[in-house]
Amino acid sequence: MTTSTSVPAYAAPAAKAPLERTTVPRRPVGEFDVLIDIKYAGICHSDIHQATDGWGEGIFPMVPGHEIAGVVSAVGPGVTKHAVGDHVGVGCFVDSCRACEYCEQGLEQYCTQGNVGTYNALDKDGEPTYGGYSTQIVVDENYTLRIPDGLALDIAAPLLCAGITLYSPLRHWQAGPGKKVAIVGLGGLGHMGVKIAHALGAEVTVLSQSLRKKDDGLRLGADDYHATSDPATFEALAGRFDLIVSTVSAPLDLDAYLRLLKTDGAFVNVGAPEEPNALSMFSLIGGRKTLAGSMIGGIAETQEMLDFCAAHGLGAEIELIRADQINEAYERVLASDVRYRFVIDAATI
Amino acid sequence: MTTSTSVPAYAAPAAKAPLERTTVPRRPVGEFDVLIDIKYAGICHSDIHQATDGWGEGIFPMVPGHEIAGVVSAVGPGVTKHAVGDHVGVGCFVDSCRACEYCEQGLEQYCTQGNVGTYNALDKDGEPTYGGYSTQIVVDENYTLRIPDGLALDIAAPLLCAGITLYSPLRHWQAGPGKKVAIVGLGGLGHMGVKIAHALGAEVTVLSQSLRKKDDGLRLGADDYHATSDPATFEALAGRFDLIVSTVSAPLDLDAYLRLLKTDGAFVNVGAPEEPNALSMFSLIGGRKTLAGSMIGGIAETQEMLDFCAAHGLGAEIELIRADQINEAYERVLASDVRYRFVIDAATI
Repeated sequence: MTTSTSVPAYAAPAAKAPLERTTVPRRPVGEFDVLIDIKYAGICHSDIHQATDGWGEGIFPMVPGHEIAGVVSAVGPGVTKHAVGDHVGVGCFVDSCRACEYCEQGLEQYCTQGNVGTYNALDKDGEPTYGGYSTQIVVDENYTLRIPDGLALDIAAPLLCAGITLYSPLRHWQAGPGKKVAIVGLGGLGHMGVKIAHALGAEVTVLSQSLRKKDDGLRLGADDYHATSDPATFEALAGRFDLIVSTVSAPLDLDAYLRLLKTDGAFVNVGAPEEPNALSMFSLIGGRKTLAGSMIGGIAETQEMLDFCAAHGLGAEIELIRADQINEAYERVLASDVRYRFVIDAATI
Repeated sequence: MTTSTSVPAYAAPAAKAPLERTTVPRRPVGEFDVLIDIKYAGICHSDIHQATDGWGEGIFPMVPGHEIAGVVSAVGPGVTKHAVGDHVGVGCFVDSCRACEYCEQGLEQYCTQGNVGTYNALDKDGEPTYGGYSTQIVVDENYTLRIPDGLALDIAAPLLCAGITLYSPLRHWQAGPGKKVAIVGLGGLGHMGVKIAHALGAEVTVLSQSLRKKDDGLRLGADDYHATSDPATFEALAGRFDLIVSTVSAPLDLDAYLRLLKTDGAFVNVGAPEEPNALSMFSLIGGRKTLAGSMIGGIAETQEMLDFCAAHGLGAEIELIRADQINEAYERVLASDVRYRFVIDAATI
């Protein structure tokens, strides 16, 4: 592609409207660009937030999708990192300023200029970006990840958001042997948290609303599983954890969860509740506890995560769907009726 | 003293009652005990909280005071760490379980059994403890600190609570050269934060309600000083700090303060607001930010702090009062009318 071209995609034509088949433009393959034939795209809860304009300022028509796995079909003349035929992935952003202190540290997710989202954003050329619910995408080689051999593309796709969102805080707060880690919520994010924390060598507990998915949790690598709807859970586990990673997007009783931490323990939120939480400072003071947040990961760390997952045979638990099932899948995500990630077969777009 | 004895003290006979002169029992000097002739006792805001039963469950009559400086006048036969004539101090606790994982790490302030407060607590023998507004106190040698030569006892007394409360988080979150640190509130705690952060080599900014104490702040070691009542402060300082330590005991607009942090920055609360705070998780997620708490410090770290302060010529800024001025001093503390710590001359008790 040396000129801009149109490719098939599924888009929300307006906020809250059902997604429908359409075409969107892709830029010509520039000097440092990679053209990717998309094979699979995961459905992230934040796709639904944005397609329904839950966060405001949405750009429509919107093609969601930032969990992209595919095969390189063309490269620009300056590309050195990827070659035609390579298995590659694209996550939540496709560019950043490349010059700020965070970009220089490989923390592009916290770029001071704001990075360029894979969709629902304006690219550096001022044109809207369109995401992975599509057959092809053009991405700068520096924001394109290698998917290692041995990691199937369908189960790799969700790693680009769900995987890195959990991997990054688990590494940053040093989950590993001798550490007791709890994962709150066993959904698309949480199930990757269980797998990765287990593979890192930590002792893993799932804290889920009910015991409905307990068998799954244990199978995925959890050592223990408790229902948060049972007040006894908060008695039994008081002072137990070094690290709690919450994937829940609704406000929680933070004071209750903070009581489950050891001194110097950290509660890290990767879910994105829209409403504010209430919190007593005493919950933090009496044990030098940390409440923190974490947002996806940088490019180098995302590559490290993919290599780690390949080395440990980890992929997402997925339900593969056709593109014409996207709207139904959205309903099921909202009803928590997915084990554990919907992935769109791009051949059906 | 080989038998229990009565010593003069100032006590609150009941919650919210004015303090008055009385006597309280001190235990006999046991094998590992030190008898301290108290010379000075600082007045901490938490003395007022407790004497007015703001935290509940107060034990009355109550002799407050956990910023104690004095001279050893007798020691038990097993004492090796202190000798008659030594300058010593006592802080917020006088014992702990000595066996839990935190006591073993020198984090006695987070003892899983709860440490024994210097006052308003029950000692291991089941008797109430009485604090520093008194002429003598008997304390186990392991919970007695050395006050180095060259550090005058009157300006040393407030270090035992205000000093360590700031020193510990400044060290834990690595204030030092190249780091930008803000201290919120320039009172008894905050003014020690400015002195210590400056001595640690950090660039120090005071965030105070008004500019009323700006000259003091700069004299104490601050490089910059801003009024939090001015909304422009929150624009001008966005993304500026590695570490913010808040000494404020009232709920703050945490989201506004968290915007002042860099990525990976920490906001640490050492004040103890009684009401809950509201917080948006987005304030933490978009920059992997930490909200944490910290409570005084362990015995070894408190000794380290005293040695550090002596080496850097740091003491508290104090207003020395007579014991019969305690109730008036409490009123002035509540009105923020103190620069920066009231210290009781124990010779007047």
